[in-house]
Amino acid sequence: VGPGANELLAFLRAPRATRTFAPRAVAAADVEAIVATARWAGSARNRQPWRFVLVTDEPTRERLSRLGAYAGHLAGAPAVLVLLSRDGDGLIDTEFDLGRVAQAVTLAAHALGLGSCVATLYPDENVAAAARLVDARVGWRPRLAISLGYPGEPAGGGRPAIPRGRLSVDELLLP
Amino acid sequence: VGPGANELLAFLRAPRATRTFAPRAVAAADVEAIVATARWAGSARNRQPWRFVLVTDEPTRERLSRLGAYAGHLAGAPAVLVLLSRDGDGLIDTEFDLGRVAQAVTLAAHALGLGSCVATLYPDENVAAAARLVDARVGWRPRLAISLGYPGEPAGGGRPAIPRGRLSVDELLLP
Repeated sequence: VGPGANELLAFLRAPRATRTFAPRAVAAADVEAIVATARWAGSARNRQPWRFVLVTDEPTRERLSRLGAYAGHLAGAPAVLVLLSRDGDGLIDTEFDLGRVAQAVTLAAHALGLGSCVATLYPDENVAAAARLVDARVGWRPRLAISLGYPGEPAGGGRPAIPRGRLSVDELLLP
Repeated sequence: VGPGANELLAFLRAPRATRTFAPRAVAAADVEAIVATARWAGSARNRQPWRFVLVTDEPTRERLSRLGAYAGHLAGAPAVLVLLSRDGDGLIDTEFDLGRVAQAVTLAAHALGLGSCVATLYPDENVAAAARLVDARVGWRPRLAISLGYPGEPAGGGRPAIPRGRLSVDELLLP
């Protein structure tokens, strides 16, 4: 028998954004396993409007980290999985689908013992700069990038800028 | 010890869109467990720009099923979890975050033996009609609804309108 429902629900609840990483490389096979898992996420009309580019070299990660106000963690992550969104019509549907595949990436990473954190690249000129950095195909926008790595020691000192925790079920599931 | 990485990756890959359901109710406790799990999904600046409304009565499900071109499955699902998106600025970020929580809903449902399928309600006048049907709070848009239920026998006969399967890792993870 496989894992029980309660074990699986606990696994699904567990990931938290990881922004500090240990100095340990992420195996290419692990990144491939993450993509091989996340590709099964659903998308509108099965368009799969996503592609991935793995970035490990530090200069490129460092440049990417300056292309979004909250993207600093990309500089210190041993691996960054850039998510490309198909450009064009249906932008809202596409970004919803990108969210589905990003959550699958986060969970597959967690299954492998890896922490992750999603970064949004913006505004548009920063997305264009990222497209040049990762040599993105025409028609694909690198609006998102996910840091991957083994969790490190948080810098500590002071509370996070944004409160953690989540709303309760009673606040979320409306009568 | 908990489940191993390979078991967890297999679990994450497993869910497929379920559009036909057995005539068996979904326990309210299971819906609460799904929301209690999905609420841990990440969101930009931890805004949690999502709320949920559970719809089980058939007339409302039937009306919702006519508010999107691919939403027919909502009529036959014993439970429909309507996802409300926070209206206003940052629409793209919000829909990306809704995708994250929707993937978490799909996976939590699968952990409980439930099938699911995401429906998009559109165009805008249909979203407005859905808002009236579920008595949505001002500032919250019911653009998405997820069918939940125990999988039933597919109607069979003929292949699906949209090809199944997914692109390979080589097609998705670009050099």
